[in-house]
Amino acid sequence: MSKVIGIGFLGCGNVGSGVWRLLNDFAGEMEHRTGLRFDIRKVLVRNPDKARCIDFAQGVLTTQVEDVLGDPEIDIVLEFLGGEKPACDYLMEALRRGKTVVTANKVAFALHWHELQKTAQEHGAGLYYEAAVCGAIPIIHTLEESLQANRISYIYGIVNGTTNYILTRMSREGAEYADVLADAQKLGLAEPDPSSDVEGLDAAYKLSILASLAFHGRVPFENVHVEGITSVKAEDIRCGQELGYTLKLLAIAKREGLMVETRVHPTFIRNSHPLANVNDAYNAVFLRGHACGEMMFMGRGAGDLPTASAIVSDLVRAASAQKHCYPTFDNTLHPQVALENNTDWQTAFYVRMLAVDKPGVLSHVTQTFTRYEVSIAAMQQKDAAPDGRVTLVFITHRASEKAMMQALRALDTNFACVESVLRVES
Amino acid sequence: MSKVIGIGFLGCGNVGSGVWRLLNDFAGEMEHRTGLRFDIRKVLVRNPDKARCIDFAQGVLTTQVEDVLGDPEIDIVLEFLGGEKPACDYLMEALRRGKTVVTANKVAFALHWHELQKTAQEHGAGLYYEAAVCGAIPIIHTLEESLQANRISYIYGIVNGTTNYILTRMSREGAEYADVLADAQKLGLAEPDPSSDVEGLDAAYKLSILASLAFHGRVPFENVHVEGITSVKAEDIRCGQELGYTLKLLAIAKREGLMVETRVHPTFIRNSHPLANVNDAYNAVFLRGHACGEMMFMGRGAGDLPTASAIVSDLVRAASAQKHCYPTFDNTLHPQVALENNTDWQTAFYVRMLAVDKPGVLSHVTQTFTRYEVSIAAMQQKDAAPDGRVTLVFITHRASEKAMMQALRALDTNFACVESVLRVES
Repeated sequence: MSKVIGIGFLGCGNVGSGVWRLLNDFAGEMEHRTGLRFDIRKVLVRNPDKARCIDFAQGVLTTQVEDVLGDPEIDIVLEFLGGEKPACDYLMEALRRGKTVVTANKVAFALHWHELQKTAQEHGAGLYYEAAVCGAIPIIHTLEESLQANRISYIYGIVNGTTNYILTRMSREGAEYADVLADAQKLGLAEPDPSSDVEGLDAAYKLSILASLAFHGRVPFENVHVEGITSVKAEDIRCGQELGYTLKLLAIAKREGLMVETRVHPTFIRNSHPLANVNDAYNAVFLRGHACGEMMFMGRGAGDLPTASAIVSDLVRAASAQKHCYPTFDNTLHPQVALENNTDWQTAFYVRMLAVDKPGVLSHVTQTFTRYEVSIAAMQQKDAAPDGRVTLVFITHRASEKAMMQALRALDTNFACVESVLRVES
Repeated sequence: MSKVIGIGFLGCGNVGSGVWRLLNDFAGEMEHRTGLRFDIRKVLVRNPDKARCIDFAQGVLTTQVEDVLGDPEIDIVLEFLGGEKPACDYLMEALRRGKTVVTANKVAFALHWHELQKTAQEHGAGLYYEAAVCGAIPIIHTLEESLQANRISYIYGIVNGTTNYILTRMSREGAEYADVLADAQKLGLAEPDPSSDVEGLDAAYKLSILASLAFHGRVPFENVHVEGITSVKAEDIRCGQELGYTLKLLAIAKREGLMVETRVHPTFIRNSHPLANVNDAYNAVFLRGHACGEMMFMGRGAGDLPTASAIVSDLVRAASAQKHCYPTFDNTLHPQVALENNTDWQTAFYVRMLAVDKPGVLSHVTQTFTRYEVSIAAMQQKDAAPDGRVTLVFITHRASEKAMMQALRALDTNFACVESVLRVES
């Protein structure tokens, strides 16, 4: 005897349609494996008359959110609207009515986790969000359930498929950012307004969620330092390649004691690092726990069916749960162990500069670096340009970012102009 | 108020000590996060007087299994003995007494899953075995919980650290198998009797477990075709490298409809495949689901703390469960959908042969291949050896293995002698 679970959709775009398709095509096998049957009772859409490939039964589509939230036969609400408003209000209202929520909404969690979880706990409702980070990769569940016995010291993530696609093509083709972006938009791999992706915000939302779970303390979105890929130049990718590095938009979270640093920015990593081979629209999370050691999880971070794979696994988990679980964050439970935001991080640097080709220039640069305790790991000088200036490329050892910036400001611009500075993780 | 869970160890070698250490060092944080405290009441050992680094309380060590299984305060039994006997008897007895079992014992599951699960279900006991496959990588849990909405079509695994370490060093150094094995034994990275690892049995046990979960039907260990790495030659690794391939001991499981093939053997994969960069003692599982697409999970497959990371996560799960879950296998529930064992698989091949250097030889080889419907994807001819014979290396397109073997037997040995045949997956 299967258990029938009434569900409602908020929104039915790309991901919603994928979930519908997966539930529909797979209903028999699913029921067989899990003893569950899902009955899609209501689907909130903006325009019910729009042509769709989905064959909804009469009366399922609605423009009124109350038809979903107010239906007593709906146990679980699946939210696909995304963004903060009105999605968060709907999620809160669903939870207040005791309905379990399954969502892919990273913004809701990055900005309003506390309220969502508090409301869910107060009303005995479940809160499931595997699909909010890295699509099909079960990284949320892994952090919550499989790595509890670990003190996680760092996470490096490629968590945005659009930017990884753009950087992969820039690397392969030597093409410039604007050209690849335009092509990605034509191919539907970047949004018409790509700003949330290319400026790193999407990755920062996800990093706030991953770091909170990994470090067992809320790491607010506001603490994440964010830089996107809009000013990445093909020439820097090429210079990095010559030194054995690949450029990725990394979401980085590190913890030492109670100090946490979280940052999203273009980052050079060695070609031999497992993340360097994560290409195109793939996502990956690389992390280290004190017991498990280093691990990597790679997969499709977006797309209708990969996201639906995560949503439906949450749906089964939600429908089978005897009791819903919630992560516990040390800094809400125990303010004395609140994590602190470290903004003076250490990292290695890639610096490209144009210098006049005369004696003393290199020694000026290296002496200035030394004065600020920045030491050089690798250097390359290139043939002079037509204007007589030469390109110098440096990779430094780990240094305080503040010291590095001071060193660069202290360079005499009559000798050398800094063209690009990028961070390096090794 | 924390809940105290009495636990007992069967065995306390490398992994058992790791679990003890992790539970001990991490007890405070664990309790804080999970509300659970674990009380290690009894530890079965062969010799209680042996010197240990662990400081067990008086009366904890015992040589009598009944002290563990018969202790009414022990809720969960952790088994670290490994192997079939006597571990399986102890596991069965623990389950019959309603005690939940957490184990890293792959042999027990590969050979006796059905009895273990039946007994566990009959007595309401839990059965947890994340650590049985790929150490710290949560692949069991991922297959059971996060990929339920997928029809998985294939799994490629690097599931044995010892053989991956040996092949990695053979590839890097151009060294021969016997030399690297001897060195690995000196370093403690291979057992004094390495046969279970190097002959592929260890990987085959794990593949039987992974395939059963992925395909939702029991894939018996006996069905796994097993070849180890003992006859791998440095020259073949080198020839493969020249053509852009890396040699790995892959555990392969594929499903098409009800036909399943499972095999463990040295396999060439393209250098660009994510598994090609999984080196040293690391493990990884690469799989494809119809919804999630391709995914890879990489991490430490062995070692005390990585294995303990998986064991302790199972322990927390077992202690928190309101109800224990068990996988359902179609072929026990529904014999009409029993999976069938496909032994006539298709794969691409690498063939190295020594041929006399005279006209007509190449055409003889290619015509023979064609006669058996084997088509050639790449070919390389090398300089003649001192005996005047030339080395020919072929990579074929996918072909029936049976046809390939017939083709090789049909070659005229006056023209060409086959030196090596290896499979290629792409």
